[in-house]
Amino acid sequence: MIKHDRFLARTGETLVHSAIRQMGTIAAQLPDVISFAPGYPAPETFPWAEYRDIAAELLSGRDGSVLQYGPTRGYGPLLESLQALLAGRGVTAGLDELMVSTGSQQGLTLVARLLIDPGDVILVELPTYTGAIAAFRNAQATLVGVQQEEDGIDIAHLDEVYLQQVAGGRRVKFLYVVPNFQNPTGLLIGLDKRRRLLEWAERRDVLIVEDDPYGDLYFEDSARPEDTRPIKADDDEGRVVYLSSFSKTLAPAFRVAWIAAPAALVSKFDTAKQSADLCTSNLDQRIAYEACRRGVLERQWPRLRRHYQHKRTVMTRALSRALGDLVSWPHPRGGFFLWASLPPEIDTERMLARATEQRIIYVAGRAFFVDGRGAHLMRLSFSLPTAERIEQGVARLANVIRAELAATPGRRSAPVEADL
Amino acid sequence: MIKHDRFLARTGETLVHSAIRQMGTIAAQLPDVISFAPGYPAPETFPWAEYRDIAAELLSGRDGSVLQYGPTRGYGPLLESLQALLAGRGVTAGLDELMVSTGSQQGLTLVARLLIDPGDVILVELPTYTGAIAAFRNAQATLVGVQQEEDGIDIAHLDEVYLQQVAGGRRVKFLYVVPNFQNPTGLLIGLDKRRRLLEWAERRDVLIVEDDPYGDLYFEDSARPEDTRPIKADDDEGRVVYLSSFSKTLAPAFRVAWIAAPAALVSKFDTAKQSADLCTSNLDQRIAYEACRRGVLERQWPRLRRHYQHKRTVMTRALSRALGDLVSWPHPRGGFFLWASLPPEIDTERMLARATEQRIIYVAGRAFFVDGRGAHLMRLSFSLPTAERIEQGVARLANVIRAELAATPGRRSAPVEADL
Repeated sequence: MIKHDRFLARTGETLVHSAIRQMGTIAAQLPDVISFAPGYPAPETFPWAEYRDIAAELLSGRDGSVLQYGPTRGYGPLLESLQALLAGRGVTAGLDELMVSTGSQQGLTLVARLLIDPGDVILVELPTYTGAIAAFRNAQATLVGVQQEEDGIDIAHLDEVYLQQVAGGRRVKFLYVVPNFQNPTGLLIGLDKRRRLLEWAERRDVLIVEDDPYGDLYFEDSARPEDTRPIKADDDEGRVVYLSSFSKTLAPAFRVAWIAAPAALVSKFDTAKQSADLCTSNLDQRIAYEACRRGVLERQWPRLRRHYQHKRTVMTRALSRALGDLVSWPHPRGGFFLWASLPPEIDTERMLARATEQRIIYVAGRAFFVDGRGAHLMRLSFSLPTAERIEQGVARLANVIRAELAATPGRRSAPVEADL
Repeated sequence: MIKHDRFLARTGETLVHSAIRQMGTIAAQLPDVISFAPGYPAPETFPWAEYRDIAAELLSGRDGSVLQYGPTRGYGPLLESLQALLAGRGVTAGLDELMVSTGSQQGLTLVARLLIDPGDVILVELPTYTGAIAAFRNAQATLVGVQQEEDGIDIAHLDEVYLQQVAGGRRVKFLYVVPNFQNPTGLLIGLDKRRRLLEWAERRDVLIVEDDPYGDLYFEDSARPEDTRPIKADDDEGRVVYLSSFSKTLAPAFRVAWIAAPAALVSKFDTAKQSADLCTSNLDQRIAYEACRRGVLERQWPRLRRHYQHKRTVMTRALSRALGDLVSWPHPRGGFFLWASLPPEIDTERMLARATEQRIIYVAGRAFFVDGRGAHLMRLSFSLPTAERIEQGVARLANVIRAELAATPGRRSAPVEADL
């Protein structure tokens, strides 16, 4: 086990908006909009009847602690369920290496508060999750991007970037990755590459922050459960801070997520969480615990995999039909997102005005890049709309893109490759 | 309206534990302990049946958004209920001046992140709420204490302390106060003094952060509703950031609280909350909203006032009987706390070992003082234990104190005055 004290940090303040949150606000205000923007799960997949039963029992009044303050680290029995859940993913974590967070977003902010000194370099994938960008920038980190390949982050480029930063006299504190069905690309880091990433982190003496909200949502037609094995599973020396969440499987409203990390860090996260919100909603934690205990979560998994796989197929088929000559994407093998690459003369941010007019929205690619790239890319979420709405939405999107192209000077005829 | 940009700040990092949270952990581990430590509401006062009905309807599945992500600023209809609630307290707030926070503790941390530059002076009451001390210290504030009198903060001393700090070249950013049934003293700031505080803040050009979780819980035998009128109610120029919460009236498990502040600050708090936790639990917000809409909250108030007034009376009578010769306290006219002053040779922190042995716990006074004082003081919460347990607990406490005195050299015979 390495010593973690030397990674502890001071935080700073430069506030960054979330592009996706803003998009959610726009979507909420438009009537009849089809939204491919926010990565919301589909409410029709939620096990409503089971939550109703659980809530009725929890609110019987027999156990007053259900509505009371709880321990900052989380509801004890839930922490034990998380241990079992992690064991199923190959991750061994002691109770002192685990804590609940108010959504994974809180986990990211705790990581930022604890690990980032102003000016520290944090390495991230190009592109990467906007919520992580905001949390790290708000701690005054310098974010430096690393290219991705078809099987995820490019390790040669990673080391090159690392050496450049070190040569420039900067401290590289950690690498942030979303190895399973990454937000926004949908990519999966290859298994062999995960092992090599861990070796790289050991060699270069940096931490890895592994964010895994989508691992359970692999699509059986193109990925195996073992493809999602967390990097954390092979982390013998405490290099990896692992974040995961119930937001995509049980429900986002609960804001129940968790962190598995070396005990020395968890103890610091715990202290920081005390002054952040004292504890995560006890009622929500109890519901999540009951959903684990009663097998609700386990029964959800295959159902969710089928549900989102089907929507993914509907979207890729519709896109191939309507835009196959103009748009390309890496095939989503799990998760919520399709990462679409448009002709290079299109600026997806500029095109949003036209899209909004046509009642179709997405997240423009630039929000996910820390180096200003991504102008001709967009993230399309297939998770929330129904299959029918996905087809309608793609038709609207095709109209928007063709109209935008017609109005854009410098049209080239050849389709472009997926740009990761 | 003053400009608020000049109050915006960078945050830092030096983590502070909450003494009360630690005490909660100890209490949870002891069998048959009577705890006067954490300020927990009494679960038997919660309207369980009504929550059960509300949850059953919310979880019917008719409205998918109940379990979805929600706006960072809070559930719209709840914000409107908060407007009405605030109007009842004399506070006018536009929708752009309001937001939901994940407990008031999150409000304090948002305030700290946004307003405190490392080294900034924050003025606080002596003693003050430990959660605020932690949040402000974690932003690297310099906390400076101001004495209290029977009607709350001493304005002459406040100005003296202010001038000293300014003469020392330091920036005083805001004054933090808990005007209603303060945690830990139970004191109420007098109405005239509230007006003068606001004038003082205007004259000295500092902000006031007003924390008001207990205002609804006045005891009808010794306080009137108008005694709890927030400072914010008379704040015409946006000097006051007002925090309040449902934790003491509906239930703490929900983690639903709110901030009323100038729109320019709320917009910044909103951005900071995005990367803190995206949004507060939607289910919990919906339950809180329904509790407002259906009159549950309104029906709770008189019930809670009677409940806690009764427990206060049980505790003060038991204390007078068992310890009237040794212990004094300001009479609690509302809220959850009794602030006990022991003979000066007693160190309440040191005495905790003996108290724990006797299965009685409290919070030692020093945790509430930013200047190291408070060794012979303790906070006793009468909110959680039943009347019977309060009597038993006071009997145990009397044994502990008498035994501690007998074992302490330098015993003086005269009782001491309440030390605020």
